[in-house]
Amino acid sequence: GLFETILVDNQTIYAWPEHYARLSAGLNRLGLPEVAPKDLLARLNAAARCTGGVSVAKILITAGCGPRGYVRSENPALTIRVWANLLPKLNSAPLSVGIAAHPISAMPYLAGLKTLNRLDQVLAANPVRQDIDEQLLTDHQNRVVCATNSNFFWREGEQWFTPPITEGGIEGTRRALWICRLGARQQHAALGRLALAEQAFLCNAVNVYRPIAHLQGRALTEASPPQSAALVAVNGGYQFHETAASFDCLHADADNHLKQNCWSKIRGMNP
Amino acid sequence: GLFETILVDNQTIYAWPEHYARLSAGLNRLGLPEVAPKDLLARLNAAARCTGGVSVAKILITAGCGPRGYVRSENPALTIRVWANLLPKLNSAPLSVGIAAHPISAMPYLAGLKTLNRLDQVLAANPVRQDIDEQLLTDHQNRVVCATNSNFFWREGEQWFTPPITEGGIEGTRRALWICRLGARQQHAALGRLALAEQAFLCNAVNVYRPIAHLQGRALTEASPPQSAALVAVNGGYQFHETAASFDCLHADADNHLKQNCWSKIRGMNP
Repeated sequence: GLFETILVDNQTIYAWPEHYARLSAGLNRLGLPEVAPKDLLARLNAAARCTGGVSVAKILITAGCGPRGYVRSENPALTIRVWANLLPKLNSAPLSVGIAAHPISAMPYLAGLKTLNRLDQVLAANPVRQDIDEQLLTDHQNRVVCATNSNFFWREGEQWFTPPITEGGIEGTRRALWICRLGARQQHAALGRLALAEQAFLCNAVNVYRPIAHLQGRALTEASPPQSAALVAVNGGYQFHETAASFDCLHADADNHLKQNCWSKIRGMNP
Repeated sequence: GLFETILVDNQTIYAWPEHYARLSAGLNRLGLPEVAPKDLLARLNAAARCTGGVSVAKILITAGCGPRGYVRSENPALTIRVWANLLPKLNSAPLSVGIAAHPISAMPYLAGLKTLNRLDQVLAANPVRQDIDEQLLTDHQNRVVCATNSNFFWREGEQWFTPPITEGGIEGTRRALWICRLGARQQHAALGRLALAEQAFLCNAVNVYRPIAHLQGRALTEASPPQSAALVAVNGGYQFHETAASFDCLHADADNHLKQNCWSKIRGMNP
């Protein structure tokens, strides 16, 4: 199955076109049927109305029940669950970031998708180390891919970089947006290259800018968001202002909104 | 989480020491607490009594509920589920075996464990192709690792081989037993090497010998179990006779039985 983690502030939903585009791509890759965006939006809206504040909504889609073994039923009836939980106020203190002990799996066919196969992330996040806030995950060649629940960006001079999602990791909705806004290059980062980083941050759907103050113990100086991004404070963290849309407006013109996602823009970019 | 798939025939359980040893190793690798063998045996017995015939029992163990995100609760209370289903009569017709289209994930840290991260297997098993019965899964170097739900053995001259479980696949309980009985070598098999196979079979916990009649379209001649194994017919398939034990006898002397698993024997073997 697949999931999405979506930030919702009462009637405002963030980066819906990106979330829906990734989910659709995932269903397609897994050979599962499509889900109408209006159906998901209606469920999201209902879930968000129950919490009534800044909350994280989850969409969870599985292939549903099947026969014994790994074979799915011929016409899988998707199980779709949508719920929302109020989000505690975020802590925006700059992070101390280390490196997880063992590499994540290489899964070229599934790279980028937000599948439920997340044992790597669970293992990387446990046990929590006291001396660091977050860990970067590396692949089998000791190259940085992402953090346990975020994507990773770093700056060398005027150029921003982020690791490509070729064998593992998730094509983050905010990763795509940042690549557009920063003109970031997707390049593999061997651990040693982190020494060149002058600034770095993590991003995910809940907070698009979490500055890194210490990277493998080395202090970074800059901890303010790049100017090129129009960020707005939400619940103690940041969001891209222009990705906010109301459920009503999305419902009214669902197809046009979905075309305005950032994926098509980064497709032509490196690599 | 982890699971085990165990063949039970009324009061007889097969290869319990191997199943328990693999499960314990998995819990340890995932940083989860131990589970007492007597507790699992009692649950297995109860589940098997309900079906009362040849059935497949499943043990499913997860880390249980945790907080939001990937971090587990500090003292995870395992969720343990055990159930059994009657096994339909097995079809022992020799198999036609092909190659799955895309490679399975490389996960050195998790290789061998029977975790719930089985999306590769689900994808490989779907859609079912009409012209073949089973598919071999390959790694990112195009080497055979296993089949969707079985381990793979092949013979060249007098020597038996099976792929090593170094980056993906499952350390099958019957795989270990076959390695002992056949003196099989664990060697990587590039797809081309399959041309050297004179005989081949698949094995899993439900049936330890499923002969392969056609391997990538090429006919193999031999389809009778190797003499060195003392096999017994169970439910239309085969089992290793000496791995059968009654729940009662296992309960009475649980520790001694667990020491008699085959893992220690193959540990000293190649590679």
